[in-house]
Amino acid sequence: MTGFAAPSRFDAPTVIRTKRDGHRLTDVQIDWVIDAYTRGGVGDEQMAALLMAIFLRGMDGAEITRWTAAMVDSGRRFDFTDLGLPLVDKHSTGGVGDKITIPLIPVVLACGAAVPQAAGRGLGHTGGTLDKLESITGFTPELSEARIREQLCEVGAAIFAAGDLAPADRKIYALRDVTGTTESLPLIASSVMSKKLAEGAGALVLDVKAGRGAFLATEAESRELAAVMVALGNAYGVPTRALLTDMNRPLGCTVGNSVEVAESLDVLAGGGPADVVELTLALAAEMLDAAGLDAVDPACTLRDGTAMDRFRRLIAAQGGDLTRPLPIGACTETVTASTAGVMGDIDAMAVAMAAWRLGAGRAAPGHPVQFGAGVRIHRRPGEPVAAGDTVFTLYTDTAERLPGALAELDGAWAVGPAAPELGPLVIDRIG
Amino acid sequence: MTGFAAPSRFDAPTVIRTKRDGHRLTDVQIDWVIDAYTRGGVGDEQMAALLMAIFLRGMDGAEITRWTAAMVDSGRRFDFTDLGLPLVDKHSTGGVGDKITIPLIPVVLACGAAVPQAAGRGLGHTGGTLDKLESITGFTPELSEARIREQLCEVGAAIFAAGDLAPADRKIYALRDVTGTTESLPLIASSVMSKKLAEGAGALVLDVKAGRGAFLATEAESRELAAVMVALGNAYGVPTRALLTDMNRPLGCTVGNSVEVAESLDVLAGGGPADVVELTLALAAEMLDAAGLDAVDPACTLRDGTAMDRFRRLIAAQGGDLTRPLPIGACTETVTASTAGVMGDIDAMAVAMAAWRLGAGRAAPGHPVQFGAGVRIHRRPGEPVAAGDTVFTLYTDTAERLPGALAELDGAWAVGPAAPELGPLVIDRIG
Repeated sequence: MTGFAAPSRFDAPTVIRTKRDGHRLTDVQIDWVIDAYTRGGVGDEQMAALLMAIFLRGMDGAEITRWTAAMVDSGRRFDFTDLGLPLVDKHSTGGVGDKITIPLIPVVLACGAAVPQAAGRGLGHTGGTLDKLESITGFTPELSEARIREQLCEVGAAIFAAGDLAPADRKIYALRDVTGTTESLPLIASSVMSKKLAEGAGALVLDVKAGRGAFLATEAESRELAAVMVALGNAYGVPTRALLTDMNRPLGCTVGNSVEVAESLDVLAGGGPADVVELTLALAAEMLDAAGLDAVDPACTLRDGTAMDRFRRLIAAQGGDLTRPLPIGACTETVTASTAGVMGDIDAMAVAMAAWRLGAGRAAPGHPVQFGAGVRIHRRPGEPVAAGDTVFTLYTDTAERLPGALAELDGAWAVGPAAPELGPLVIDRIG
Repeated sequence: MTGFAAPSRFDAPTVIRTKRDGHRLTDVQIDWVIDAYTRGGVGDEQMAALLMAIFLRGMDGAEITRWTAAMVDSGRRFDFTDLGLPLVDKHSTGGVGDKITIPLIPVVLACGAAVPQAAGRGLGHTGGTLDKLESITGFTPELSEARIREQLCEVGAAIFAAGDLAPADRKIYALRDVTGTTESLPLIASSVMSKKLAEGAGALVLDVKAGRGAFLATEAESRELAAVMVALGNAYGVPTRALLTDMNRPLGCTVGNSVEVAESLDVLAGGGPADVVELTLALAAEMLDAAGLDAVDPACTLRDGTAMDRFRRLIAAQGGDLTRPLPIGACTETVTASTAGVMGDIDAMAVAMAAWRLGAGRAAPGHPVQFGAGVRIHRRPGEPVAAGDTVFTLYTDTAERLPGALAELDGAWAVGPAAPELGPLVIDRIG
């Protein structure tokens, strides 16, 4: 009965069957199905079947490139080249405690770069930069293109909700979440890159996570994802490189929304956890090099306050009031160590689950998050622990969430006789 | 991010991922997802992703059995055992020119069996018994359970729209059609058997088609489908057997709606094409044996008019008026042979496509069909052909459909020097 429902070369069942049977999608099939899905001519149920076929059959490099281009073409593409600025952006594939964007953008601004960043909201176990920044009273990411241009000229950066960019990706991203098709290399790569290629950056640096808290299960897959995304950006004419970084344990001492902003402010004040500082500076160096600004030392901007100054100007430009206190969950619970020793490794995914259960993440797209919910890690892997020491503090506005969050941490950490072996934070550089 | 959207053991993404990753679905997962989909708690896009995962990963016998039982349990199940009748039914997996149900039911009625038949409408290239019978003025398949019971007592049979039976299957069947997930053995087997196990027959005979005009591509797959369905019926307590029959060329001389009813009347009058008569009698013998009525000779009922009498009573009971002329398409076109010789094989799928383009089938569920549209085959494989002989006549109500239908027949037939080798009509018996 196949193919009868719409006797066209490009009816949806024919496209679905092409991939289902293990064949390449043609350029015209890809262009047609992305356009028709964006406009509503192909239904969610048809795209869901196609996504599962792609998940199980894969796509080759040429298919991924075309699929990504079609998603870019589904909406507007910003172009700020007329401003004459060294435009560069960074994207992370999503980690636990990954607040790096917050200190990173002011650092590279202070070094002379300009950053147009289309940012996302958290869904599932990884937090979203917008959710974190919205814990600052008054901050808004809803910026018009005209306002983004103004901010690029006035403060050097804009952090905005993707809005009209790559509307096909917005629909497909929401669909993947409810249809069990998230952890697919071609779908992750095309989703990330379609937004980044539409936002108007002249160069891109990717932070691709590997480890227990990353989207893909193995380092080999994360490495392949990095290579595919770097190739995609370069094929589209946007010079792209990637760092492969460790996501086995949480980044820094905080996982949540406002708690991560507070930690970012510590970094911008010249302090903060060593791993957050290290990754911020490593990514800053890559961004500055990509933007042709490699003579500058980003570490200075944390010591001399220029990065903090840039952060205050950026947040103020988007309505945020840093003089108001950051919210923090009224209900707390602590986890203490029963024996003395050295803190072992901490499972990033378990901490992410705990923060999500406390209300820091959302159960479904569009749901609210608790800005003050999250986890503070008082003893990090390798640090000495005394019996009775507080190891974690949990924060939430809703006390009934505490038991479930505590349960997530069971077995996710241990105190032992010696420091755990920890690999390098930056595993490799690709591109 | 997986698993966060609905933190239940039985959220849809978890069920989808189980099959996506090649694992068995548990009984509780199957029961939950079928029930939730029927009630609307699982969306079309989620079921579409699951169906594609099932298509590509398969289901084992125990999974198919549970999936089928869950679909039966999604609605009511008829029980006519209190009537004390030898209840038996037949189902065909769908062929081209497959009008066999129409002469077959009256034959087995005349031999003492009783037939509660939930029948379907055509979708795609295979016709539906209901579409064919509705070309008889006044005929209705919309029967209440009470009316079905009355008819079983009064005329021995009822041919009714599946209605409330297996509502999960009705939704899944429509979804498969638009998502490229039709040609899947577990999905075909469970769809067929869920309706048949709910309709109240005490025994089942399946006509499983193999060849170019069948749903599955190879005879081996059709054979496996037959074995799976026979096992399903027996596991459910309904004795089931199957004939594997040839569907490389159309059955009989007509493909469409009213033209197939007319040919069925020829058979009931003691004439008609030899292959239609042969398959009718072969299936009748199986049904009578399954119903414990194996001493009766069904061929007699075609010669002595008792089957025709039973047909008239059945059609009259459902409102049909056989004194009114059957509709026939006002616009016709003929295909003639340019050389003399012997008719070669005729591609069943091409003839089905031609009939569909003439309007005999529907483009989408719920669309109307043309009762008078169809194809008449004047020279069947192995019959002598003179140059200039009419080989096919095409009928439709809408002249603009003729060129597309003619094009479908190009290359689908040939006149050669010798008769083609034709295999047996009944290939095998299973169960």
